Amino acid sequence: MKAKVHVTLKPGVLDPQGKAIAHALEALGFDGVADVRQGKYIEIDLKDGSGDGGAGAAEARVSEMCEKLLANTVIENYRVEIDS
Amino acid sequence: MKAKVHVTLKPGVLDPQGKAIAHALEALGFDGVADVRQGKYIEIDLKDGSGDGGAGAAEARVSEMCEKLLANTVIENYRVEIDS
Repeated sequence: MKAKVHVTLKPGVLDPQGKAIAHALEALGFDGVADVRQGKYIEIDLKDGSGDGGAGAAEARVSEMCEKLLANTVIENYRVEIDS
Repeated sequence: MKAKVHVTLKPGVLDPQGKAIAHALEALGFDGVADVRQGKYIEIDLKDGSGDGGAGAAEARVSEMCEKLLANTVIENYRVEIDS
């Protein structure tokens, strides 16, 4: 089973990395870029035998991983999708 | 119009950052994690007036941004989605 996690900065939190990308795109001649935000994308491969309860249980477990390690919930949001 | 870009390491390319996450999850007591791969997730806000031809043209433009700046195509794959 595979879990896909998106970790993104909350709206309103400054994103200097995104700003740097936007400026670099402009310098390369790409106009029409209003804003860029960079986040993280994490793919977690879960062992098939691990845990029971299927996708729902896996989603709860991965959400707990996000709370404890993957995301800084003060400034970041996360989204979990489970691919079975 | 919004473009969502996923940049991921190609299969076979070593991912030390992903390995570090996997070890940290194990140390926190999460078992059942077989593998972790970390990539980048970039949201690009395109000005509405910019370019013409709608989603298809936007996708081509963002793919060009990936080739030139956002992804290192030697070791990374990218995927572009357009939200209108």
